[in-house]
Amino acid sequence: MDACRAFFYRVKLYLTALGKWVALAVVTGFCCGFLGALFHMGVEMATKYRTEHPWLLWLLPAAGLAIVGLYKLTRTEGQGTNDIIDVVHLGKGLSIWLLPTIFFSTLLTHLCGGSAGREGAALQMGGDIGYHMGAAFHMDDRDIRTATLCGMAAFFSALFGTPLTATVFAIVVVSIGVLYHAAFIPCLVGALTAYWVSLELGVEPTHFAVAAPELDAAMMARVAILGALCALVSILFCNSIHFLQHILTRWLPNPWIRAAAGGFAVIALTFLCGTGDYNGAGMEVIVRAVEGGAARPESFLLKILFTAVTLGAGFKGGEVVPSFFVGATFGCWMGPLLGIPAAFGAALGLVSVFCGAVNCPIASIFLSIELFGAGGMLYFALSCGISYMLSGYNGLYSSQTILYSKL
Amino acid sequence: MDACRAFFYRVKLYLTALGKWVALAVVTGFCCGFLGALFHMGVEMATKYRTEHPWLLWLLPAAGLAIVGLYKLTRTEGQGTNDIIDVVHLGKGLSIWLLPTIFFSTLLTHLCGGSAGREGAALQMGGDIGYHMGAAFHMDDRDIRTATLCGMAAFFSALFGTPLTATVFAIVVVSIGVLYHAAFIPCLVGALTAYWVSLELGVEPTHFAVAAPELDAAMMARVAILGALCALVSILFCNSIHFLQHILTRWLPNPWIRAAAGGFAVIALTFLCGTGDYNGAGMEVIVRAVEGGAARPESFLLKILFTAVTLGAGFKGGEVVPSFFVGATFGCWMGPLLGIPAAFGAALGLVSVFCGAVNCPIASIFLSIELFGAGGMLYFALSCGISYMLSGYNGLYSSQTILYSKL
Repeated sequence: MDACRAFFYRVKLYLTALGKWVALAVVTGFCCGFLGALFHMGVEMATKYRTEHPWLLWLLPAAGLAIVGLYKLTRTEGQGTNDIIDVVHLGKGLSIWLLPTIFFSTLLTHLCGGSAGREGAALQMGGDIGYHMGAAFHMDDRDIRTATLCGMAAFFSALFGTPLTATVFAIVVVSIGVLYHAAFIPCLVGALTAYWVSLELGVEPTHFAVAAPELDAAMMARVAILGALCALVSILFCNSIHFLQHILTRWLPNPWIRAAAGGFAVIALTFLCGTGDYNGAGMEVIVRAVEGGAARPESFLLKILFTAVTLGAGFKGGEVVPSFFVGATFGCWMGPLLGIPAAFGAALGLVSVFCGAVNCPIASIFLSIELFGAGGMLYFALSCGISYMLSGYNGLYSSQTILYSKL
Repeated sequence: MDACRAFFYRVKLYLTALGKWVALAVVTGFCCGFLGALFHMGVEMATKYRTEHPWLLWLLPAAGLAIVGLYKLTRTEGQGTNDIIDVVHLGKGLSIWLLPTIFFSTLLTHLCGGSAGREGAALQMGGDIGYHMGAAFHMDDRDIRTATLCGMAAFFSALFGTPLTATVFAIVVVSIGVLYHAAFIPCLVGALTAYWVSLELGVEPTHFAVAAPELDAAMMARVAILGALCALVSILFCNSIHFLQHILTRWLPNPWIRAAAGGFAVIALTFLCGTGDYNGAGMEVIVRAVEGGAARPESFLLKILFTAVTLGAGFKGGEVVPSFFVGATFGCWMGPLLGIPAAFGAALGLVSVFCGAVNCPIASIFLSIELFGAGGMLYFALSCGISYMLSGYNGLYSSQTILYSKL
């Protein structure tokens, strides 16, 4: 009798927890899906408008000033993806004002041709929504951390159309070596809901048509070498961003001057290069590399430079899509030198540099499946594993902890 | 200058580690691939021979005695998958004699119609090979644990033709909540090598042709309910096995008598059921459910009973393939009641009951991709996530630790 009562007590306990998380995740997923779709369209429109009106680049310094003003106004200066990670690690608080601030700052950055992504912004907006949703559901400290992860996954999913990658990324990125299994269902349900909402609102999921070579030992060895080189590129990418952030803050401690100067620097770099390829997120360059197999050898270095200056000066948007750009153009150039088809090399590079930068091999394998299909899965796994191992303790997020030795 | 020297020192450190692990993994992969292929063919032949000569079932009690004798002779009594997990957890030692013992015991079990799998045996043989390979490479305690995981992944991969599932399973199964990232490359390279060797030796990778339904919210809800029911089935499966192990040991403390009595019990059960469907691994029943969409409603309960008696009596082979059988036949019957196509329900059930029993949702999602393709990935992820969450702290392996709360 007692055993029976205990069994039903446990069933009730588990089903209540499931119900609570599904409810929170669906509501969070709806919000993130709606805002994610809006953000996606905003960035697309800003990019289109900029491409049609190249003179907008001249407004970049002014956009920098506006961004600094926006952050001062909302008292969210200096907040970024690391603060979202700290919410989960340390239970820190988050201002709801971060949401509109990063939203409009990223749009301004893209409109005026700063080199930045959008996934970093997505993680911040999603984390912020999840955090406040958890508070609105009167959750305790531990559950609010899970709710924050749920929001991150949902917004990532809405923007990119990769719900499983978003889920796995959210549950592994905070502490490398730990799988936050308890957040799996909240994140997955949030990501699926947001994905569905974004599809309904007309957002196309990101997907590339790439043919993977047949399984073959020699090709495996080549892919392993490319993975090792991608580790080096990811180290260069992360350290360039950190270095410019550090050096610009030291040289130009005043954020207004730093933003304006950074804007002028990006203008100067653009005219020196004579191309707009490195402004904005550069999705069209990524598509050219991954689907067309075409990229210039110097592209990845220039994108690192543009992105490091843009972000170091205080512009917004994040580092994930730039890491895709850097990886894809690098892999597209290096692949054929190693005997790998250019387009497939670009796909490998995209995923492997991302993996080296965020230290999440499992999420990166899911990314490869959701972006390119499962045909080349084993190649992607090898290349990501090697990039993870050899990228050492470098990474994009200084708040991320790597719990175990990599070797 | 110093920075330069430090950089090259680090490069050398990382490349040495990579070289060491690739060397160990390739050698381990070759051994495991060769023995795995041999084992695979052995089990196939034993199954074929038994199907052609049903009288072999009468020898099951004698086979039980032979197995007890074999374990006594090699002084490996009572060793099993939990001991492999303990090697990784606690750095315990392992006898090399476990390898031939479990090899022949599993073949005998299959030849005479005991209801058991082969993956448990694969994990033990692979772990044993990896452990002794690490020792042969003069590795320290920490590295020997990683080498053990490498062997587990390699043998699993050779037998099933699912290298990525094998890799992820090995690095997450020991401590639920921890990702042993440092073992990723050793396990992956071992699994790929063993997979290649087994392909060369003519082993067909396990793969099923199943069509996944289009993405749809109503179908998602149905899949979630099936996932919840699979959690209950996995609890029943694990607890039946533990319960019969416990009760048979208490009733018949003498292992000789236990094995013989268990053999007679399986014979009696077989005649009561009037079918050989529940003897051996039952791959043909799994194929019938997953590809043909056909299974009897009582199948999953009978397979639980047969397996619990077989393993409780001391026969060998492991619980993974029986969990596939139970899940596939359950899902095949329950799916249509919920509005899910029978064959797809079988595929969902197979992966979800496995997930509930081993507590590894990420490895289970990879299993679904490698067995059924990536088309239904999001459905499998939801069903596995719910099965993981609701299966509580039950599991096949008592040595497995679940580090964080599931709720």
